[in-house]
Amino acid sequence: MAERINRDTRGVYIIAATPFTDQGDIDHDSLRRLVDFYIGHGVTGLTILGMMGEANKMTGDERRAVIDTVLARTGDLPVVVGVSDAGLANLTDLASYAMDEGAAGVMVAPSAGPAREDRIEVYFHAVCEALGPEVPVCFQDFPLATGLPVSPALIRRLSQERDQIVMLKHEDWPGLTKITQLRKQEEAPGVARLSILCGNGGLYLPQELQRGADGAMTGFAYPEALVQTVALHHAGRVDEAEDLFDRYIPILRHEQQPGFGLAVRKYVLMKRGAIASAATRAPGPKMSAIDAAETDRLMARLEARLKG
Amino acid sequence: MAERINRDTRGVYIIAATPFTDQGDIDHDSLRRLVDFYIGHGVTGLTILGMMGEANKMTGDERRAVIDTVLARTGDLPVVVGVSDAGLANLTDLASYAMDEGAAGVMVAPSAGPAREDRIEVYFHAVCEALGPEVPVCFQDFPLATGLPVSPALIRRLSQERDQIVMLKHEDWPGLTKITQLRKQEEAPGVARLSILCGNGGLYLPQELQRGADGAMTGFAYPEALVQTVALHHAGRVDEAEDLFDRYIPILRHEQQPGFGLAVRKYVLMKRGAIASAATRAPGPKMSAIDAAETDRLMARLEARLKG
Amino acid sequence: MAERINRDTRGVYIIAATPFTDQGDIDHDSLRRLVDFYIGHGVTGLTILGMMGEANKMTGDERRAVIDTVLARTGDLPVVVGVSDAGLANLTDLASYAMDEGAAGVMVAPSAGPAREDRIEVYFHAVCEALGPEVPVCFQDFPLATGLPVSPALIRRLSQERDQIVMLKHEDWPGLTKITQLRKQEEAPGVARLSILCGNGGLYLPQELQRGADGAMTGFAYPEALVQTVALHHAGRVDEAEDLFDRYIPILRHEQQPGFGLAVRKYVLMKRGAIASAATRAPGPKMSAIDAAETDRLMARLEARLKG
Amino acid sequence: MAERINRDTRGVYIIAATPFTDQGDIDHDSLRRLVDFYIGHGVTGLTILGMMGEANKMTGDERRAVIDTVLARTGDLPVVVGVSDAGLANLTDLASYAMDEGAAGVMVAPSAGPAREDRIEVYFHAVCEALGPEVPVCFQDFPLATGLPVSPALIRRLSQERDQIVMLKHEDWPGLTKITQLRKQEEAPGVARLSILCGNGGLYLPQELQRGADGAMTGFAYPEALVQTVALHHAGRVDEAEDLFDRYIPILRHEQQPGFGLAVRKYVLMKRGAIASAATRAPGPKMSAIDAAETDRLMARLEARLKG
Repeated sequence: MAERINRDTRGVYIIAATPFTDQGDIDHDSLRRLVDFYIGHGVTGLTILGMMGEANKMTGDERRAVIDTVLARTGDLPVVVGVSDAGLANLTDLASYAMDEGAAGVMVAPSAGPAREDRIEVYFHAVCEALGPEVPVCFQDFPLATGLPVSPALIRRLSQERDQIVMLKHEDWPGLTKITQLRKQEEAPGVARLSILCGNGGLYLPQELQRGADGAMTGFAYPEALVQTVALHHAGRVDEAEDLFDRYIPILRHEQQPGFGLAVRKYVLMKRGAIASAATRAPGPKMSAIDAAETDRLMARLEARLKG
Repeated sequence: MAERINRDTRGVYIIAATPFTDQGDIDHDSLRRLVDFYIGHGVTGLTILGMMGEANKMTGDERRAVIDTVLARTGDLPVVVGVSDAGLANLTDLASYAMDEGAAGVMVAPSAGPAREDRIEVYFHAVCEALGPEVPVCFQDFPLATGLPVSPALIRRLSQERDQIVMLKHEDWPGLTKITQLRKQEEAPGVARLSILCGNGGLYLPQELQRGADGAMTGFAYPEALVQTVALHHAGRVDEAEDLFDRYIPILRHEQQPGFGLAVRKYVLMKRGAIASAATRAPGPKMSAIDAAETDRLMARLEARLKG
Repeated sequence: MAERINRDTRGVYIIAATPFTDQGDIDHDSLRRLVDFYIGHGVTGLTILGMMGEANKMTGDERRAVIDTVLARTGDLPVVVGVSDAGLANLTDLASYAMDEGAAGVMVAPSAGPAREDRIEVYFHAVCEALGPEVPVCFQDFPLATGLPVSPALIRRLSQERDQIVMLKHEDWPGLTKITQLRKQEEAPGVARLSILCGNGGLYLPQELQRGADGAMTGFAYPEALVQTVALHHAGRVDEAEDLFDRYIPILRHEQQPGFGLAVRKYVLMKRGAIASAATRAPGPKMSAIDAAETDRLMARLEARLKG
Repeated sequence: MAERINRDTRGVYIIAATPFTDQGDIDHDSLRRLVDFYIGHGVTGLTILGMMGEANKMTGDERRAVIDTVLARTGDLPVVVGVSDAGLANLTDLASYAMDEGAAGVMVAPSAGPAREDRIEVYFHAVCEALGPEVPVCFQDFPLATGLPVSPALIRRLSQERDQIVMLKHEDWPGLTKITQLRKQEEAPGVARLSILCGNGGLYLPQELQRGADGAMTGFAYPEALVQTVALHHAGRVDEAEDLFDRYIPILRHEQQPGFGLAVRKYVLMKRGAIASAATRAPGPKMSAIDAAETDRLMARLEARLKG
């Protein structure tokens, strides 16, 4: 069984897409193929059932089936499971299922309910109470999607008071200073380190690493770019890391279109042979012919650049 | 079996709370008692699994169980079922189940996904396609909760193009002019009437009726106030309707606190004997001792006023 | 010169409308008449250039002229001046002008710029630095308008660290528990009392007083209702205060329509002879004939109730 | 005097920053130097007093002074003036002043007041009425900043009904499909062409041009990159345009951090000698030492890439 996430976790946890057939059913064959694709590109771990995994459009049974398929395939590779839910009982049930199956931890975003920092604080304590202290939690800080901005002080307070909050999925935007502030806090005595993996498409990954982040947790359809950037950076080859990364920026920024980017991402994964269909589940973004041609062009330009 | 909702539907469709035990399970005994309570107070119909029914914190199975319990109890009384969901397939599945069980129609709010009027339009066409033309739809227009304001022109266009969109749950705020605009549109030839039932706690019900609304669709814990106000108004006794209504305003406005009001509502329902526990499902608002005393006071004042 | 606001200030600070001519110019004659109207109804103080005073649609010179006219008329009556502005220099300049003219303090809302509690905190410290320690500040907490919810803990922290933050304009919604929390904090040693005046149209004024608020700061067009409610409450005649208040609720809740309510308020002030024209400045809400008739009806019903 | 903007305007209208001294005063010397810098890099026109120009933190007199300084320096070069304001009279006054001084048109964003497409429509008609038909208008469509998403259908309707709405500042995100939709609309008979200049930092400029945009209206601190990209594209050298652009993406995406990016932009302008101080007006973002070092690094990497 895989190691659980902890305060020293680093590397690339790829946010896994969920493949659907053109009819909207979960395509488990493609899901297995996709897991192999991610593993083949050297990721450190997987994060499934996140926002980009379209979990909110699935039934509970479907989410469980996705967990089954992925965990049957990943072996020693750690898998974080997104369990955010409007209901605390649903959240806990899914978390228990995932942990029993061997997940490495769960990811929770502040719910739409609480709209003030003191309410978010109460909410996360309730989540930890309900999960029990053994379940490692990754705090997903994504104000652009949740509408709930959170101060670094609150993240730190929660992480200090709850041993199980070991990781931050950092996707505030702009968020570089937040990393610096969080790392500075850790210089004080008695402050426990927090693993920081960066999301938000990876658009500022080199800068985030230079500020002290531990890696990436995002779903870019070229996971090798994330893996190599993080590896080079951790090997002290900071400039090479950024040189490599910069070659991918044009298509990465294209994937980083809120709401629509998922369609691009799935299209690229399909073109790369990782999944059978680029379909998102309804209601979801769809690629037009012109969107597809535009993405083809960006892929071709990337290929030429990598060869050149 | 109950009649389906249509463009001439009027009266009071009470938004039903979902009773939970203190442990967070659905309390079906209380649910049956609550249905009897609503019927005993003369409501025209019920709306279940709406936002105030905490549907988003239930599993699919639980929602189906609520439908079963309610529809086994309501007989000829029409029941509208809230089916809003981030996923279109989940929405459709629940709608089919409800209609098969004898529901009078379904209620759908614009999903958080689409954030522009053209996207909301596309979304509702997709919903109607997926439901099939036989399922009557109530459009829930509640920008304070959805974050998605909608022009009267769009509501009308959808209602003209889709015969099945027969009803508006009106809870824009301020929204009195919207009713006037919608009714004015219907003076043009070829424009089909829309049933308009008002939500938003009922805070402006007399004014809404005077503007041309057909009744109420909200969950005030004194349903008799809504029933009598609407009945008096429809009997042409407009002043009496408003006199009656005004006596309830102090407690009605207390129930009309966004997010927190549901706790007050359930507390009043419990005190009135309609349900066993005032608990909301986590994460949900909770009454403190001071909250309870405050509501007790408002209930006592109402009682005194009604007697006086 | 009037006394400045302080941590023990109580009573009714009426939010003054700004009268305009039908051509959109500031009507200083009406402004003087309006000040007399407010004073005649027994208010404790005035708050000018707030959101409902349409300050954001005026030039700097116009704001100064409003300050001049009002302060020339109010004598010993304290006047709080709203100085919120996107720019700190503009804010400070207006505040200096107002204080030099004899204002009792200034009111500041979190600016649209900072969107996280730590940023709001930094912002208020910068405001206090720029104002200097002698200028008393009223913190306007109005998330429905600013989009910036604030925890009671942050309000307290600012009020503890900055002696000059002496007053809270409370208009969070729901916000009753917030008052209880703030008053509970003051039971701890070393915590300075905060004057709490309630806005938000006054919809929950009796409850707010019962929770420990010191009075009202809102612009209801029947200021006598606020004045008498607060006076009766402070005289220990709590039930009478609420009885009196409840008679005004139907029209008060009509004035309490976000965005549109200002048009109703000015219309009522005009009908009561306090100002010459009900016009708001463009772009602003306008009363249609049906809106006017509806408000006339509510006014007549109130009059009948007060006589009855 | 410069030509006014019209439906066929193309090229690069650079969004001009407003230079301040470290004390927060407008630095007119730097403003003149900055205009020369922009002109020297070949821009087609200037847009002043936009959001990134910090206009909302200036007094009316200061805005007029900026107009004076810029228009005294630009000669034949067209200058668009941002005039968005909460008050319609202030908007109109500034627009009149600007047009009298020789501006090429004005830019208006939907105001925070109206929150529904029908209200935005009414608002823009009121703006056009107030401006008079001779003033060319650029519609700024920037939902991330205004909170007001707008359908392409509404933009088109306004542009058809008001001859003076000749240009769209396109900064919806994602927004590529919007360009395609707007251009497709123009294939119908009787539909007037709209000039489309793209903002949003320029992050997708090559794609936007390929979709039919006419150029850029954004404030990237390397205006030569925008100028050359647009020129190459318009010369039919589409691949070269994108090759050139891609070299700038790493630093462009760094400048494209909402709220904070303005500090980066001004820092780069200062380092390039275009302005004396990187200060923004309070409350505004500030560069820390680490922010500065990070930007230095990105500038150095760009320089190396351009040489390489």
